[in-house]
Amino acid sequence: MAHEFKFVRTVEFSETDMAGIVHFSNYCKYMESAEHRFFQSIGFSIVTSNLDPPIGWPRVHTSFDFKKPLRFEDEIEIHLLVAELRSKAITYHFRFNKLNGNDRELAATGKLTVVCVSRSDDGEMKACNIPEAIASKIEPAPAELLES
Amino acid sequence: MAHEFKFVRTVEFSETDMAGIVHFSNYCKYMESAEHRFFQSIGFSIVTSNLDPPIGWPRVHTSFDFKKPLRFEDEIEIHLLVAELRSKAITYHFRFNKLNGNDRELAATGKLTVVCVSRSDDGEMKACNIPEAIASKIEPAPAELLES
Amino acid sequence: MAHEFKFVRTVEFSETDMAGIVHFSNYCKYMESAEHRFFQSIGFSIVTSNLDPPIGWPRVHTSFDFKKPLRFEDEIEIHLLVAELRSKAITYHFRFNKLNGNDRELAATGKLTVVCVSRSDDGEMKACNIPEAIASKIEPAPAELLES
Amino acid sequence: MAHEFKFVRTVEFSETDMAGIVHFSNYCKYMESAEHRFFQSIGFSIVTSNLDPPIGWPRVHTSFDFKKPLRFEDEIEIHLLVAELRSKAITYHFRFNKLNGNDRELAATGKLTVVCVSRSDDGEMKACNIPEAIASKIEPAPAELLES
Repeated sequence: MAHEFKFVRTVEFSETDMAGIVHFSNYCKYMESAEHRFFQSIGFSIVTSNLDPPIGWPRVHTSFDFKKPLRFEDEIEIHLLVAELRSKAITYHFRFNKLNGNDRELAATGKLTVVCVSRSDDGEMKACNIPEAIASKIEPAPAELLES
Repeated sequence: MAHEFKFVRTVEFSETDMAGIVHFSNYCKYMESAEHRFFQSIGFSIVTSNLDPPIGWPRVHTSFDFKKPLRFEDEIEIHLLVAELRSKAITYHFRFNKLNGNDRELAATGKLTVVCVSRSDDGEMKACNIPEAIASKIEPAPAELLES
Repeated sequence: MAHEFKFVRTVEFSETDMAGIVHFSNYCKYMESAEHRFFQSIGFSIVTSNLDPPIGWPRVHTSFDFKKPLRFEDEIEIHLLVAELRSKAITYHFRFNKLNGNDRELAATGKLTVVCVSRSDDGEMKACNIPEAIASKIEPAPAELLES
Repeated sequence: MAHEFKFVRTVEFSETDMAGIVHFSNYCKYMESAEHRFFQSIGFSIVTSNLDPPIGWPRVHTSFDFKKPLRFEDEIEIHLLVAELRSKAITYHFRFNKLNGNDRELAATGKLTVVCVSRSDDGEMKACNIPEAIASKIEPAPAELLES
């Protein structure tokens, strides 16, 4: 049963803007990179090819609070925590930490709610139950982790 | 006194992802495009060159609720509303509408809070009062517009 | 018979990088925006839904020569010219002009070669002849336009 | 004396488009990620803070030949080779390889020419000699590597 995932990467030049800091649209990409690697860590891809019917995970809500800017070549840790697991939806919390040696400085926090959908033959997406094979491997993180 | 701005654009191919819909990171860009054009509409650029000291507008909070996916070549209207004007910060609300002839279908809503900062000689950004020249041209939108 | 297309847009803040200029990856997006609007101008979408079998236009070659940097809020004209039309491929030339009132300053040039492919049932893409309905509406630009 | 650099990364979901493959604008970002890590490997950042005057590396030419599409979760190796070192400019060649266990499949090749510039007090960029501290650490790759 998994409730968190950590992923470290470096800020790329192309992610900065003329203010000299990471453009806020990139936090969506950072967030999603951690979500997809979390799925891989439990043995699935966010893009299913072996489930029938194929499912998808459209985003229904996301939010960010920005504390400190991130800059080119900063080493950052994206920390995903499962905040809520419902029959058709998952809510994640994220911390974006800037790493300095052994220190981490909180640069931003984020939330993401995704719903599980299956695609009918006419291409329409419809909310469906999260497949048991996936749901059985995920659990909400302990409250003290979410609040810290 | 301005309290809203509308901006229409077309969804680009490069904004879609392999799910066939607009990747959610692009809503940050759509949002910002409307914010910057709103500033131009009141006679300023979001990047000041004629104010002393130069100011900037870092994002401190943003959120999105996604209702309907947007697709390649959809014509979309980004509708900005000033929700709150404080001494050092502005909060905007956004509606992302898909246009179909004379109809608009709500695809997503968003919120954005920016703070006004000046940059000291050592490059540090510090919150400061919004210059009167700008603040005097902006007012919050009527409550009925924000709630609709 | 169409051989060129011009498209004007404004440089967005999110397209700049920490050097204060447009990041070069965006020229690919600018180029493609003009290509897709060129297709619309002759009555087609680059994403076919009414041709059988569906075709696609993968990029096989592209190049850019950068002359002058583009900056936030610059008004730019992307000028597409059909350089070569073959049975299965089209080569376009592009000029990226910065507009200053009635003047245009050449910021960059580009080339793009795309091939027409159909997708077989197993998802494989295979080069195919450009449908006559499309090919019959396109012609190479006069040599003097391409050389100027 | 360094003449090459290899960098491995995974294709992100946000880098795909509705055709299900990596959008070609991302090859510019992949290329640049390898260039910047090459600079770090010889002890410099592409963004100088300790050289006087500060220098930059604007792109003057780039090209790509696309052989095979890249897809979500593909593991890719970006292989940079120094092709030419002149007094004021460097030309790199790139191979974008898709990794399959011990096999590599060539997905694309690319070229990039950058010039060294210093920024005068009025913000103008002017070509200048590559600082000796940097030039002395770089050499062109052997011809057989460039041709293979």
